[in-house]
Amino acid sequence: MAKPTPLSGFPEWLPDGRIVEQHVLDTLRHTFELHGFAGIETRAVEPLDQLLRKGETSKEVYVLSRLQEENSQIPDRQLGLHFDLTVPFARYVLENAGRIAFPFRRYQIQKVWRGERPQDGRFREFVQADIDIVGAGELPYHFEVEAPLVMAEALGALHEIGLPPVRILVNNRRVAEGFYRGVGLEDVEGVLRQIDKLDKIGPEKVSELLVTECGATDDQAKACLALASISGSDVGVIDEVRSLAESYGAVTELLETGLAELGALIAAAAQRAPGVVVADLKIARGLDYYTGSVYETVLVGHEQLGSVCSGGRYDTLASDGKNTYPGVGLSIGVSRLVSRLLSADLVQASRSVPSAVLVAVSSEEERATSDTVAAALRARDIPVEVAPSAARFGKQIKYADRRGIPFVWFPGSAGEDGVVGADQVKDIRSGDQVDADAASWAPPAEDRWPRVVPRG
Amino acid sequence: MAKPTPLSGFPEWLPDGRIVEQHVLDTLRHTFELHGFAGIETRAVEPLDQLLRKGETSKEVYVLSRLQEENSQIPDRQLGLHFDLTVPFARYVLENAGRIAFPFRRYQIQKVWRGERPQDGRFREFVQADIDIVGAGELPYHFEVEAPLVMAEALGALHEIGLPPVRILVNNRRVAEGFYRGVGLEDVEGVLRQIDKLDKIGPEKVSELLVTECGATDDQAKACLALASISGSDVGVIDEVRSLAESYGAVTELLETGLAELGALIAAAAQRAPGVVVADLKIARGLDYYTGSVYETVLVGHEQLGSVCSGGRYDTLASDGKNTYPGVGLSIGVSRLVSRLLSADLVQASRSVPSAVLVAVSSEEERATSDTVAAALRARDIPVEVAPSAARFGKQIKYADRRGIPFVWFPGSAGEDGVVGADQVKDIRSGDQVDADAASWAPPAEDRWPRVVPRG
Repeated sequence: MAKPTPLSGFPEWLPDGRIVEQHVLDTLRHTFELHGFAGIETRAVEPLDQLLRKGETSKEVYVLSRLQEENSQIPDRQLGLHFDLTVPFARYVLENAGRIAFPFRRYQIQKVWRGERPQDGRFREFVQADIDIVGAGELPYHFEVEAPLVMAEALGALHEIGLPPVRILVNNRRVAEGFYRGVGLEDVEGVLRQIDKLDKIGPEKVSELLVTECGATDDQAKACLALASISGSDVGVIDEVRSLAESYGAVTELLETGLAELGALIAAAAQRAPGVVVADLKIARGLDYYTGSVYETVLVGHEQLGSVCSGGRYDTLASDGKNTYPGVGLSIGVSRLVSRLLSADLVQASRSVPSAVLVAVSSEEERATSDTVAAALRARDIPVEVAPSAARFGKQIKYADRRGIPFVWFPGSAGEDGVVGADQVKDIRSGDQVDADAASWAPPAEDRWPRVVPRG
Repeated sequence: MAKPTPLSGFPEWLPDGRIVEQHVLDTLRHTFELHGFAGIETRAVEPLDQLLRKGETSKEVYVLSRLQEENSQIPDRQLGLHFDLTVPFARYVLENAGRIAFPFRRYQIQKVWRGERPQDGRFREFVQADIDIVGAGELPYHFEVEAPLVMAEALGALHEIGLPPVRILVNNRRVAEGFYRGVGLEDVEGVLRQIDKLDKIGPEKVSELLVTECGATDDQAKACLALASISGSDVGVIDEVRSLAESYGAVTELLETGLAELGALIAAAAQRAPGVVVADLKIARGLDYYTGSVYETVLVGHEQLGSVCSGGRYDTLASDGKNTYPGVGLSIGVSRLVSRLLSADLVQASRSVPSAVLVAVSSEEERATSDTVAAALRARDIPVEVAPSAARFGKQIKYADRRGIPFVWFPGSAGEDGVVGADQVKDIRSGDQVDADAASWAPPAEDRWPRVVPRG
């Protein structure tokens, strides 16, 4: 077999990169669980007809077939790999509605697949970490405040390993819809679709499109762009929107509802996650199922990477015709985060293996002695490996050094008088070597497990 | 959308089942890391030609295609989902050979897919947890002793949650090959293939097949069956095999090498994992790439479930023509274990959500007070959620009870005199309610996180 080459769009990490990714995953999971979210996993596949319910994503789906399918007598229902965790979660909620308690708070951390052209930060296989809160029939607004604040805390907990600060941009569909209808534009989805292009093509082109595609007058287009230009992290932004609407005679009940909601979110965020949440009236989110709050998140200084955590409120996450399940949630693009952390040298693992200690082996005949030391240390939760061969000690120390293992343990050996000397442990970074007892010695807490730290 | 139905062979757990699975995964990972294994993940897909190198598995492979592939100008190299973690690991080793240090100790816990007919304990999508140790050029025998003992420890650590004891059955290919050649049978693979059927079709039919398929005489067939009938957990088993071989004049150098190896494993296991490892001379493992030790594992009392942890030594895990990488490893069928734990009611989670505390909400106006209490508790690593609505307290307590949340917190409210009373926390199991301060109160350690315990 010739040396294989990587597949574009399917990232894999070396062991030290995986330590970083695992740390990110553990941190997210811990924050989600602190907030009472229950973890679930769903299967990787869904029936193709379910995946294709939203036509626009059809191009991204990987379809499965079994190699011997033509010989099979009962052909499978056609299956595809899920491209997000929302579609499977909606199905899971319907399938298990009688067995889960609502409102249902769940997190889900899994790989998803999209057959798109790979780019920087855009993969064909990647990990998402989602939280959602789903109600049966109803879901109070306060969950739209809570969800992004949980994500602010989760991403904030990664700041200590070197993740840049995040900025969560929020908007509210009711504000946009109330405003557009107030200025006389009824094609709300159409307008949102054009506004969504602002960052890509700029205000002039969007203005043209609003006129040509959505039937807006120049004045209406101007109003939409004026709304989209408003942003800010305190409740003053609410007054700014209302003033703009008043100047166009565009204050509607829906707008007021939306502004009250957005104001509540901004006020709570200012208190609970100061400086993180910013109202940004141009955030549209391409997907048409959002009905209330919408969220996007950028890494400060890495805005061109795109959103690393997005989501919103949807009145109908799932429905079986009889019952409707509204939800609110956000999804972190973990692979996008981790690949940037690694490629931009923002972060590093303190070593590439879990072992804090390498137990040296004096001779193959005495390997059992080293195994006994290792077992004694592991019994006190210290990660240990035993040297692979009874090479000269210099070579065994080099083995540890190459992997970043900080300590090498030397079992005591019998002297010429037959008396067995004390075990010794060497900190190979400082060279310090001291007598030690495997029943009581422990490494400093910061050396026990690999740490993930900002790269100096 | 009508209520969806499960897909056969694609297991999913409810939140309390997922807590059990997560506990199993965490326990395995922790044991692997204590032994210095570095975690990696590989992509879910491999080029189809790599997956099909061993022809016999071809029927199991799920092949991917992109829905719009015919429109694509550059067709993808055909990809399939991996059906185990060994093939991807071998590819990973070759791809990164210059960047990883050998011997390389890695664990890998991921889903795999096989398009087989689902049965009890046999799925189309399931989780495997693998450890392997891979050398560059050489790999000393002591790793063949170590690997199953790590798995014995990992599976033993699950005994406290209700996993039945395991029995690891070991054999050595050199013993079998040395013996078969000693009695004059040269078609070693053919004989192994028939011996592998013993449990399914019994000794008489196997004997017939040895004669008709492998050209054995009745006496040779009898010798093979006699070897296969030997088992035991102490080194006496080694003498038993040697005596048998002597009685057939079948002692070969290869047999002696194999017996020395097998004896070393049994001796070490008797000391380090008493009663767990059993030499069983009929263990053949269907796969032909094993070259030394082979392992299978049964749950005591659930033997009909099949092996839950299998593996062996292979002299050529990977090779790029210039370098060869021998390895030894085992793979735990995590989904098979977890599904049995759940379906046989062996185990349960102490609750279905992470939250140890539900903070009650007196009125929607006072929700911020409850949020503040929750934040104070979380800051001290206590998992908390806030009540979804300001319903009457009886209903809020019922919300906690339904999820198994043990404590409900009542923020102090202002009395008629305007003085705010102390917060109180209620253990809803006992009904005890006491004054409490969110800056210092903590639940008993056993209530802080959900526990997984044997079902009473």
